[in-house]
Amino acid sequence: MRLATMRLPGGATTAVRVDGGTATELGFADVGALLRAGALEHAATTAGREHAFERADLAPVVPAPGKILCVGLNYRAHILEMGRELPTAPTVFTKYPEALIGAADHVLLPPESSQVDWEGELAVVVGSEVRRADRAAAERAIAGYAVLNDVTMRDWQYRTMQWLPGKSFEHTTPFGPVLVTPDEFTPGGDLVTAVDGEEVQRTRTDDLVFGPAELISYLSTILTLRPGDVIATGTPGGVGHAREPARYLAPGQVLTTTVEGIGTLTNTAVAEQVPAAAGT
Amino acid sequence: MRLATMRLPGGATTAVRVDGGTATELGFADVGALLRAGALEHAATTAGREHAFERADLAPVVPAPGKILCVGLNYRAHILEMGRELPTAPTVFTKYPEALIGAADHVLLPPESSQVDWEGELAVVVGSEVRRADRAAAERAIAGYAVLNDVTMRDWQYRTMQWLPGKSFEHTTPFGPVLVTPDEFTPGGDLVTAVDGEEVQRTRTDDLVFGPAELISYLSTILTLRPGDVIATGTPGGVGHAREPARYLAPGQVLTTTVEGIGTLTNTAVAEQVPAAAGT
Repeated sequence: MRLATMRLPGGATTAVRVDGGTATELGFADVGALLRAGALEHAATTAGREHAFERADLAPVVPAPGKILCVGLNYRAHILEMGRELPTAPTVFTKYPEALIGAADHVLLPPESSQVDWEGELAVVVGSEVRRADRAAAERAIAGYAVLNDVTMRDWQYRTMQWLPGKSFEHTTPFGPVLVTPDEFTPGGDLVTAVDGEEVQRTRTDDLVFGPAELISYLSTILTLRPGDVIATGTPGGVGHAREPARYLAPGQVLTTTVEGIGTLTNTAVAEQVPAAAGT
Repeated sequence: MRLATMRLPGGATTAVRVDGGTATELGFADVGALLRAGALEHAATTAGREHAFERADLAPVVPAPGKILCVGLNYRAHILEMGRELPTAPTVFTKYPEALIGAADHVLLPPESSQVDWEGELAVVVGSEVRRADRAAAERAIAGYAVLNDVTMRDWQYRTMQWLPGKSFEHTTPFGPVLVTPDEFTPGGDLVTAVDGEEVQRTRTDDLVFGPAELISYLSTILTLRPGDVIATGTPGGVGHAREPARYLAPGQVLTTTVEGIGTLTNTAVAEQVPAAAGT
């Protein structure tokens, strides 16, 4: 099953099931609300108002996750090619829902950063409440998979030892286009990031040091994971900051992020216009 | 004005105004809900059911903040005595609401950690929505102050470069006892942490490199801060991990955290009992 969160005229959103070209409303404001209501199985057979999916204005597939836990340094081939040892524990940091945008929204380049970079990732969405889940319970807690680009302000990420400030600029992180349930998706296909059509990152999504169930098990040791929580599983090599010379997103560039079997995020980078009297 | 969140018999909670020994219900489930409703000023004159505050069972003063942004390395004297230079930007990391406990609740020592440490802190609670707030707007966005102990699992904090896993173990972070509005509290008095009555940390709370308004201004550059969001402003010297020999919390020890002018958190450390089949 494929689910999405669509914006409706007037500002509301709706969770939809996507069957081929048809999006069917499911009676929940978004996919997060549907998961929190425990309605995932029921969604397969729900009837509702229909839309043409190709014309849908997509919100982040889960617009307001309780947690967005991001993993760094998790692609095996990239770690080895950098000459590093494989980690024994996942590197975990946070992004906030304010950062999320839809699959075709603009990535805002804030005036405060001159180093906005891409990080294409496979995202896992949690479907049930788990604490200290063993591997089998963690597998069962996966609601599905989506694509996420952990767009990062490198100049803010590396100001101090802790990465959060570079990871949560508002309206920068595309997340979608759909959530695909585990019966229709298994990690293994390619993850590809491109800028203006030029491929900049490519990996197989089964090359993770810590896979989706292992991450859920590890993180749920620390605290309860809940329906709608998101785990961004990490990015492979090819980010702009590590290139010689370094490359960053410029206004007008189109960032595409694809996971085979899920879909593509297509986001144009746009310089953010900040009102002079903002915040006062 | 002093506000708290009380647990009621049956499991519900209520926001209360504390006047001397009397706690008056304010018609909101908790102080976070009150702030999100924009009802802070109105709370000063609301009448409602009264309780004896000394017998109140306190929940975290804001039980479910949208964000808990924690600041590291922020006490000037401690940084200088360590021979370090003063930082030019705040070190920022995250804690999740699952970690929060009330002012007299037990700190759970999870079986997965053997290095549970204290970090007494002054917390700032945001009262209005701000983005890119200048210093004056940031000052106006402060709803009030509370005490927080950023209890930390050092063995999980330092597994990788990113601290989050050591900062968010469930049911470990006391937060309260009350929120004191800025007209009744200005940082400057002492922050004192003690273990079984032995003082382990003491600082003046106006020795911050980045003060409350400066932190709100900085963080709101990145993303919108909203009512109920919490900023933990950092801890001074004296944590157990930095001692020779290192000291950590043991079952039965009583951790007290006091900010002069706000109040005291009194939390007994208890070994967490984990059911054998948890999470499956």
